[in-house]
Amino acid sequence: MEQQKLKELIAQMTLEEKAGLCSGADFWHTKGVERLGIPSAMVSDGPHGLRKQDDKADHLGVNDSIKAVCFPAGCATASSFNRELVEQMGETLGEECQAEGVSTLLGPAMNIKRSPLCGRNFEYYSEDPFLSSEIAGAFVHGVQSKNVGTSPKHFMANNQEYHRMTNSSEMDERTMREIYLASFEGMVRKEKPWTIMNSYNRLNGTYLCENKEMLTDILREEWGFDGYVMTDWGAMNDRVTALKAGCDLEMPASHGITDAQIAAAVQDGTLEEEVLDRACERILNIVYRFEDNRDKEAVFHLEEDHEKARTVEEECIVLLKNEDSILPLSGNMKAAFIGKYAETPRYQGGGSSHINSFKVESALEAARGLEESAGIEVSYAKGFDDIKDETDEALLKEAVENAKNADAAVIFAGLPDNFESEGYDRKHMRMPDCQNRLIEAVTEVQPNVIVVLHNGAPVEMPWLSKVKAVVEAYLGGQAVGGAVVNILYGRTNPSGRLAETFPVRLNDTPCYLTYGGEHDKSAYTEGVFVGYRYYTSKDMPVLFPFGYGLSYTTFEYSNLVLDKKEIKESEKLCVSVDVTNTGKCAGKEVVQLYVSAKDSKVIRPVRELRAFDKIALNPGETKTVRFELDARAYTYWNMYIHNWHVESGNYEIQIGKSASEIVLKENVKVESGTVIPKEYNMNSTMGEILADPKGKAILEQAMGALSGGMVPDTMAEDDGGGAIGKEMMEAMMDGMPLRQLLSFVPGIQKETLEQLIAALNS
Amino acid sequence: MEQQKLKELIAQMTLEEKAGLCSGADFWHTKGVERLGIPSAMVSDGPHGLRKQDDKADHLGVNDSIKAVCFPAGCATASSFNRELVEQMGETLGEECQAEGVSTLLGPAMNIKRSPLCGRNFEYYSEDPFLSSEIAGAFVHGVQSKNVGTSPKHFMANNQEYHRMTNSSEMDERTMREIYLASFEGMVRKEKPWTIMNSYNRLNGTYLCENKEMLTDILREEWGFDGYVMTDWGAMNDRVTALKAGCDLEMPASHGITDAQIAAAVQDGTLEEEVLDRACERILNIVYRFEDNRDKEAVFHLEEDHEKARTVEEECIVLLKNEDSILPLSGNMKAAFIGKYAETPRYQGGGSSHINSFKVESALEAARGLEESAGIEVSYAKGFDDIKDETDEALLKEAVENAKNADAAVIFAGLPDNFESEGYDRKHMRMPDCQNRLIEAVTEVQPNVIVVLHNGAPVEMPWLSKVKAVVEAYLGGQAVGGAVVNILYGRTNPSGRLAETFPVRLNDTPCYLTYGGEHDKSAYTEGVFVGYRYYTSKDMPVLFPFGYGLSYTTFEYSNLVLDKKEIKESEKLCVSVDVTNTGKCAGKEVVQLYVSAKDSKVIRPVRELRAFDKIALNPGETKTVRFELDARAYTYWNMYIHNWHVESGNYEIQIGKSASEIVLKENVKVESGTVIPKEYNMNSTMGEILADPKGKAILEQAMGALSGGMVPDTMAEDDGGGAIGKEMMEAMMDGMPLRQLLSFVPGIQKETLEQLIAALNS
Repeated sequence: MEQQKLKELIAQMTLEEKAGLCSGADFWHTKGVERLGIPSAMVSDGPHGLRKQDDKADHLGVNDSIKAVCFPAGCATASSFNRELVEQMGETLGEECQAEGVSTLLGPAMNIKRSPLCGRNFEYYSEDPFLSSEIAGAFVHGVQSKNVGTSPKHFMANNQEYHRMTNSSEMDERTMREIYLASFEGMVRKEKPWTIMNSYNRLNGTYLCENKEMLTDILREEWGFDGYVMTDWGAMNDRVTALKAGCDLEMPASHGITDAQIAAAVQDGTLEEEVLDRACERILNIVYRFEDNRDKEAVFHLEEDHEKARTVEEECIVLLKNEDSILPLSGNMKAAFIGKYAETPRYQGGGSSHINSFKVESALEAARGLEESAGIEVSYAKGFDDIKDETDEALLKEAVENAKNADAAVIFAGLPDNFESEGYDRKHMRMPDCQNRLIEAVTEVQPNVIVVLHNGAPVEMPWLSKVKAVVEAYLGGQAVGGAVVNILYGRTNPSGRLAETFPVRLNDTPCYLTYGGEHDKSAYTEGVFVGYRYYTSKDMPVLFPFGYGLSYTTFEYSNLVLDKKEIKESEKLCVSVDVTNTGKCAGKEVVQLYVSAKDSKVIRPVRELRAFDKIALNPGETKTVRFELDARAYTYWNMYIHNWHVESGNYEIQIGKSASEIVLKENVKVESGTVIPKEYNMNSTMGEILADPKGKAILEQAMGALSGGMVPDTMAEDDGGGAIGKEMMEAMMDGMPLRQLLSFVPGIQKETLEQLIAALNS
Repeated sequence: MEQQKLKELIAQMTLEEKAGLCSGADFWHTKGVERLGIPSAMVSDGPHGLRKQDDKADHLGVNDSIKAVCFPAGCATASSFNRELVEQMGETLGEECQAEGVSTLLGPAMNIKRSPLCGRNFEYYSEDPFLSSEIAGAFVHGVQSKNVGTSPKHFMANNQEYHRMTNSSEMDERTMREIYLASFEGMVRKEKPWTIMNSYNRLNGTYLCENKEMLTDILREEWGFDGYVMTDWGAMNDRVTALKAGCDLEMPASHGITDAQIAAAVQDGTLEEEVLDRACERILNIVYRFEDNRDKEAVFHLEEDHEKARTVEEECIVLLKNEDSILPLSGNMKAAFIGKYAETPRYQGGGSSHINSFKVESALEAARGLEESAGIEVSYAKGFDDIKDETDEALLKEAVENAKNADAAVIFAGLPDNFESEGYDRKHMRMPDCQNRLIEAVTEVQPNVIVVLHNGAPVEMPWLSKVKAVVEAYLGGQAVGGAVVNILYGRTNPSGRLAETFPVRLNDTPCYLTYGGEHDKSAYTEGVFVGYRYYTSKDMPVLFPFGYGLSYTTFEYSNLVLDKKEIKESEKLCVSVDVTNTGKCAGKEVVQLYVSAKDSKVIRPVRELRAFDKIALNPGETKTVRFELDARAYTYWNMYIHNWHVESGNYEIQIGKSASEIVLKENVKVESGTVIPKEYNMNSTMGEILADPKGKAILEQAMGALSGGMVPDTMAEDDGGGAIGKEMMEAMMDGMPLRQLLSFVPGIQKETLEQLIAALNS
């Protein structure tokens, strides 16, 4: 609907109708206004499928939703590193929404994985904000191309489930900008999501629903967001404050309570009616954007979409280990499939993203389907149950026997439902003991053990050295079984790469000591050192690094070329690199570009991901991958100018197979386009002044007359072990503030220094 | 002088005389007032010896001082863990001051070792505030028992040399209280130092000289300090602000500039004259405390004090490794002494603590002195030079030959002067490459290698597995050589314990990513997790843990007894433990008591040192060591009540041979004496209310009527993999703020909740 018409419509609404529009009609609908023909719009949980509850939704939204298709969860889709694939998945979900009359799909979930303990990590994409933003952007683009809205969530800094309703995430501006906002920034700027969902938590003390800086100053004014902001379900604190801050829609229903508060505030003058009108306009704009663009032809093709879910998962699976090229399994090997998840895979997590899958395809079923056509022979033993973490000795024995009689054992393991979920955090990073024990027992009788993992976040792998292969399937959606079998038997070449570091153990994680916080405050003391930024900067061993993943073929990199050796900040840098498939089968490679600041005067991670691409290569084929970098590739957030800042200096452009394995690098010298305003005062140090060419000239002239008597003769040369050595004298001079000259240079007057400062500042 | 007389004296002083008293007469003296007979008082650098410069001191204080005795530096003396020994050392220094007419010895230096990189760590005691405070207290007690003042420094949070004149140490209140203030607190409360020296740096933005909270509110009003505060040399910023904040004496001379500022401020009414009078009274009180208690008989016995310096060092040396009991060396072994430091030991660091030693005793000299009497045979090869880090191939070759022809090689290695000093920080934790290469080369020809280290802070030891023994001599004072030889040949049994962790590598240290800061701000983001608090809480491997050290005998612990199993916070707990010397020679053991909070709701280190004692035991002897713990043993600093807080719960009393090796433990249940005021509001969570017995009763009554319809029937049992599992529902309920009931319980009114809150708060 045109803006003018919208305004006219709103002008016809009563105050109560307008206030009412700012909260839901029920759990899943915005309010309609019958007398004006304003329709109600339905929203539904996602993001990796459609959780549309039927009209008789209960008030907690926990009852069954319609039968739908469960795609791989965010933990998996980010591992694809494939924008096109995720966009196509978005298109499919958008089509499903059109078919079902759902105006907005409540996703993507895109919070940063600050700790592997966050119970909801399985829904999130990455520890890296650039990757997160790119994958989310592709998803949003796909869904919205079908004229269905998205609601990227949870904005922002909602990185733990523990006390998520009240916890305050406490961080400095730089951390916020470089990590937690950056995860959303690119997606919002490029894809203009129809809505944004604000999170439950507080940020530096202020509930996100009331955070004007986030919801208005940054989201709208800086990034150009033009949709509406809705609360997470029940994330409203003070309704009128929130409306002013830019939180337009409260969900779910407020049962009239906060509608009345809004109306009262307008009436008593504490809320300008324009603010309410603006919220209504934003909400109705989106309601009509859907309503005016309904696709009556759209059909929810369950079976087709199931196939698509499998295709997506095949690109998400990460091959973590493949000793002796045990994978792919050859068809004539007798394989023992072991573990409950072979038969009933864990393929999604609990909470609002939970899909009522119309069917689930297990690996066992998929392999059995191939037994005839491909001559595959598969046996099965359940091995463990996952309701309780207790070894069932009979199941264990059966599994070991089964493994003994096969050529290889494929153990389908992972995390049970109650080990990770929306709503609470993990307490540790271990798999159930009974599963670890099963794996150990199988390795004792079978040298060829492959572990397939079904989990939403990293786990410790005490048995890693004893197994030949590890296949990370993540929570792979309802077609995970088929996808895994295709990988195991080489019908698909694995191409997923980790979107998060797998640390060796929980204690190694950057926020191990403080995660979860205390007194409802979580101090993000690790700052920008999240994920690989921490491990690589501290040069720590990890189980598997960010960006890591194996293939059944091999890739070689060569010919890294930068089109310039020196650039101004404002110039683009074109980077190209050749990648060759040097193995025997077709495959896909994720080319990762990291930038490392070499001359920085601020504390920075050793490298940051600034570009990536995924390419397909036939055996022997070479492709040239090109990246264009802009200033952002070199920036950090400067808390003094409150802006991104590029320092002048050298930057290394690094091509990596992972964050820990850089294969090619080249240097570019960048000249800053920003002059940071500098004002000298009595506490400016000699070193600081001398580092500034103008300051150096002025100070040297002024000091000529003074310094003669300053450094005693005995200091002319290092006296080798005296009280003050040469290095100490140099450091003292470098760090000495001007005011100290008053103590150390007899006869100097304060006025002399004041004149000097005036000259420096002139 | 009596207070009344002092006041009368001050009343006779002119404004200019009073203002003048607030800055030095020159580099080392306070101003006298001839017409009133007010004497000038001399202060001298320390703290491990007397650095008294002669009357013609230059204006930077770098020229030669009088010949004196250099005792072991702080890094060493803390390793003694011996209060009596350090107190005796203080007495000796006090006597020296009396003999030389020095009214105040400028020490002890007692900043916390936040990072091994701090260039001045060699002067400081420990990473642990309790140990630091206890050792400093003993030193202060010793010096002041001779009616000479001390000036514990640098108050406070001066934990780096980089930009120490302008850097701001940024930390939260809890970190400040538990770590950086705690290092001073016990010492000030118990020993009442005559003066305190404020540091150069800023604390959360405010220069320490101007920091009223530190210099007055905490130091004087909380802790009872009654001396005067002086600046570190040149650490004055704004003189009038500083005077108001409680900084009484500016050092060195202000050349009249700031005296005039003070006088002008009194005249224009911006400074109350009482504030100036108060500063004068504090300064004169101390000037006369010395003047009125002069010991005319005092003599500076150079030779006697040299012997004392050796005795101290013998208790400071830490035996870090002793494979195959290679030490003590038997007299009939042919020992090759290798390394420059055998002949010219590095025994002190550069900067203000640098002593003009009247003689230096090398290990080579000491061993040669024993050759005849004890039949010891020692050869010597210089091995390396330490002016530049370059291998001298001829020296290397000679050393290797020398080692080859001996029964054992003792390598005297360590850090050269320019590797650590006041004034600048270390850039890495390595020893010079040429020394590491020498050690490796010697281990290739000689299986019995002992490394003796001369260094002020931890070093990496890449050769550790190849040598049989490591003797940490630290910067051991001018008699270090004799002390080391006594240890090497078993004339003294080593009993030092590390007062700091030796990490495996620099990257492992808690503030590795941020140390030194940026933009003149150092964020202490590791919080209270300094030193072993970090390594033990993260369960990280270290090279050698805090509290660690070997002996030539063995000790066994038994019979840990707590006199009560449950106590109130206000009650004392008596702890006793038996220690037996189970080896063949007499020795001293450091008994360490750590407390570990088992039920804490706040983030806490796994254990903290709360008591220690050093005892001497003959072979076969058993002693019972007793400790009395008060409430402080269980506390953390609570930032909401701005006070120490003991939580109710279980605490483990742990007896450790180091922070990483707990040998006995017992539980005590402590009942808190503090009620933390609690006010409920709409954001109080169900869990929080239910945890409070009163809240539980009220809420359950209120909810009875409401909750019937709240949890849907489908949730009565876990539906196994549904959207919301049992654990998620429990976590949701626990974390749900009251206000959310408005969204999730239809029909509930805001007024109902307000009444509930009123009832909870009543």
